[in-house]
Amino acid sequence: MSEIIIKNISIGDELLIGQVINTNAAWLGERLSAAGFHLDSSLTIGDSEKAILDAFEACMDADLVLVTGGLGPTADDITKPTVCKFFDTELAFCQEAYDNVVALFTRRGFQMSERNRGQAMLPKAGLYIPNNYGTAPCMWLEKEGTVFVFMPGVPFEMKGIFNDELLPRFLKRFHAVPYEKRVVMTTGIGESFLADRIKEWEEALPEFLSLAYLPQYGMVRLRLSGRHENADLLHQTLDEEITKLVPLISEHIFSMEDQPIERVVFDLLINKGMTFASAESCTGGNIAHVMTLMPGSSEVFRGTAVTYATPTKTKVLGVPAETIETYGVVSQQVVEGMAVGVRDLMEADFGVATTGVAGPSGGTEATPVGTVWIGVASPKGVTSRCFNFGKDRENVINRATVAAYEMLRETILK
Amino acid sequence: MSEIIIKNISIGDELLIGQVINTNAAWLGERLSAAGFHLDSSLTIGDSEKAILDAFEACMDADLVLVTGGLGPTADDITKPTVCKFFDTELAFCQEAYDNVVALFTRRGFQMSERNRGQAMLPKAGLYIPNNYGTAPCMWLEKEGTVFVFMPGVPFEMKGIFNDELLPRFLKRFHAVPYEKRVVMTTGIGESFLADRIKEWEEALPEFLSLAYLPQYGMVRLRLSGRHENADLLHQTLDEEITKLVPLISEHIFSMEDQPIERVVFDLLINKGMTFASAESCTGGNIAHVMTLMPGSSEVFRGTAVTYATPTKTKVLGVPAETIETYGVVSQQVVEGMAVGVRDLMEADFGVATTGVAGPSGGTEATPVGTVWIGVASPKGVTSRCFNFGKDRENVINRATVAAYEMLRETILK
Repeated sequence: MSEIIIKNISIGDELLIGQVINTNAAWLGERLSAAGFHLDSSLTIGDSEKAILDAFEACMDADLVLVTGGLGPTADDITKPTVCKFFDTELAFCQEAYDNVVALFTRRGFQMSERNRGQAMLPKAGLYIPNNYGTAPCMWLEKEGTVFVFMPGVPFEMKGIFNDELLPRFLKRFHAVPYEKRVVMTTGIGESFLADRIKEWEEALPEFLSLAYLPQYGMVRLRLSGRHENADLLHQTLDEEITKLVPLISEHIFSMEDQPIERVVFDLLINKGMTFASAESCTGGNIAHVMTLMPGSSEVFRGTAVTYATPTKTKVLGVPAETIETYGVVSQQVVEGMAVGVRDLMEADFGVATTGVAGPSGGTEATPVGTVWIGVASPKGVTSRCFNFGKDRENVINRATVAAYEMLRETILK
Repeated sequence: MSEIIIKNISIGDELLIGQVINTNAAWLGERLSAAGFHLDSSLTIGDSEKAILDAFEACMDADLVLVTGGLGPTADDITKPTVCKFFDTELAFCQEAYDNVVALFTRRGFQMSERNRGQAMLPKAGLYIPNNYGTAPCMWLEKEGTVFVFMPGVPFEMKGIFNDELLPRFLKRFHAVPYEKRVVMTTGIGESFLADRIKEWEEALPEFLSLAYLPQYGMVRLRLSGRHENADLLHQTLDEEITKLVPLISEHIFSMEDQPIERVVFDLLINKGMTFASAESCTGGNIAHVMTLMPGSSEVFRGTAVTYATPTKTKVLGVPAETIETYGVVSQQVVEGMAVGVRDLMEADFGVATTGVAGPSGGTEATPVGTVWIGVASPKGVTSRCFNFGKDRENVINRATVAAYEMLRETILK
C-alpha cells in the first residue's frame, strides 16, 4: 500500500486577519506524524463560500482532508451550507447530535439557546461523529474516494474528538508508514556553528533520514527524523546516527528528548527529592509560570518572589539596601543576594534569581537594555553570570528564563 | 482599481509535523489588513521541491505572494534552488547581501562561517531586499505579473523586513482598499448568549460590515469590520453601529479596544498613579508574567509572591497557620488573607490573590479540580469570589488570570 495524502484546511476570517493564531494545524501535524501519517499541506482560508469550495476542490487529490473551524453556533459560520453544496446534499435534523448538545448543557447547568438547536442540523449524506467536548458537531463525508472530516475550530474540542474518535478510524481505514524522530536539545551554540560542527555527519546521513535545525530563545532543537516501511531498520539506523552525533556536540546538549529545559530541571529535582524557588526581577514571574504549567510542579517548586519594587528586594529577600545602593539593582552582588535570600525564605534546596533590564527603556551606558544577571544559590554556595539578550523585551524575558534554568540544571548536576 | 489578491506560503517541514507553530501567517494577515490589503489564503507546505513548485503554480492567480521560510544557512533549506527553477534563473553572488552579512557579524562580534557566505548567493533575476535583522536574504521576483516576495521564516527578521522594506513598496505598487475594524471586549457571558442578546442588531448590519465572535479564556472578543472604497462612510457606519451595540451588552464590556484585560488594568492604574501586587497560588506567576510582558509595567506592578509551599503563605504573606488549618488552603479566608498580606508586604494600593486546584490531580469532593478562589484587597477592604474553571490545567491558569484582572478592574473603578 502506498502512502496516503493528507491535507488540512482551516476556515476562519479571524485566522487570516491575524486575530487568532492557527495552532490546530501544528497540533494535527504532530499527532499525524506520531501515528505514522504525514500532513502534506495546511491551508487557511476565510469564511467565504467561494474560498471554501475552491479549497475543497483543490484537495480532491488527497485521500483525507481534515477541515477545522466554521462550525460554531454564531452567524459568521457558513461552513455547513457550503458543505451541503459541495457534497450535493441538504441539512437534516440529527437526533444524536441534538441529544449530545442537550446532555452537555445539562451537565454544565446552562440553559439551551435556539442557536444550539441549529447545531444539530447536519448534512444528510454525512456521518455524525460524537463530540464530548462541546456543542459543535463533527462530520465525516466522502466524495469520489476522498474522505473529508469536519471538526470544530476550538482547539480543546478538536483535540478531544481527534484523539477519541477520528484517529482510531483513520488507522483502520488507511495505511500508516512507520515514522520515527529523535530530538537533541542544545543550548549555548548558534545554528550556523552547530551546523559546521556536524557537517560531515549530516552529509553522510542515509537518504530516508532528514535533519532539521529549530532555533528558539537561545536553544537549538535538532530533529533527526525519517519514515520507512521497515520500522526496525528505521529505529536501528536512528540509534546509530544519534550515537555518532552526540560526541560531536556533547557539551551543548541538555536533553535527548523533545522537552523544554524546565522539564529537564523538574525531572532532575523529582529524582533527587529536592526543591527550588526563584526570585525574579526582569523575568517578571516567567520562571515560575513555565514551571507551574506542568502538573505536579508543586513537588519541586516552592514559589517565586517577583520583586519589581526595589525596597521589596530588601524587605522580602533580605538583600541589604547598602548593597543595592553601592552596586546598583542590576549587579552581581544583588543577584547573588536575591538567590541566597529566596532560597532561605522559601526553604528550598536551590534558589535562582534574575535581575536585568528587559527594556525597551531603562538602559544606561554601563547597563544597556538586555543586560541580565542570573544567580543560583545551592547548599554549596552561590554562582552568577552576566548575559546580554538583545533589545526585544519578550525575547529578553524568554532567553533569560532559559538561561536561568540551564544554570540551575548545571548547578543541580554538580 | 480593483482589489488585489494576496496569498501567503509558509515553507518548512517543522510547521507540518507540528514542532513549530506558524505565527507568521497571523502576523502578516493583521499587518496587511491594517494597511488596507486582504490576505486571501495562507498555505503551509514542507521542504520539498515538488510541494514548493506546486504551491508557486497555484498562486499564479494572485497579484502578490508572500513566501516565508526556507532561507536559513543550514542544509534543510531548499527554497533557493527551487526558486531558480520556477523563475528560470540561476544563483549568483550578490555583493550587497554579502556586505550585509559581514556587517551583521561584525556588529555582533561573531565569526563568519562558510555557510553564511553561501547566503549571499541569490537568484540572478531577483531584486535583493536588505535584511537588517539577520543573515537570511529577502528577495523580490516577478513572473507574468505576479510578484513573489521571499522572506526569512524567523519571525523577528520577517517582521522587521516587512515593516521597513516591503510594506512601503506594496503601498506604492498596489491599490489598498480602506479597511477598518472595531473590537469590543466582553467577559462573563458565553458566545451563544451574547449572540442571542445582539441578534436583531447583527441581522440589521449593512452588507459591507461583518461581525465575528472570538472566544478565549472566559472572554469573547467581538470584532465588527468592513472594507469600503469610501473610508469616511465606513468609519461613520462603524461609529453608528457600535453606538447601537454598546447598550445591549454594556455590563459585560471591559474594553472598547482590542487589548487584553491586563492592559486595561495597567492603563487604569497609570492614570490613577496607583499600584498593585499579587499573591498567586494556582496561577503560579501568570498574573505577574502577563503584566510584566508590557513595557513600563514596573510603574504599576510591585511584584508577586507565588506561594506554592503552604508554610510560605504564613511566613511571607502572614496568613495565620490556624486559618489555613481550619478552612483549608483553597478557601475564602485564605485568599482574602493572601490579598491583604501581599498588599501590605509589597506596599501596593491593591492586592490580588488566587488559590485553587489547577489540576489534573489534587481535587477533592468538596474542592474539585478547577475550583479557584480569587480575592482583591483595596484601601477600602477585601472581596473574594469562588469560580470553577474546568479540568484543563492551562485553561484553569489562564481563565483564573483573566478573572483576577476583571475583579481587580472592578475594584479599581469602585
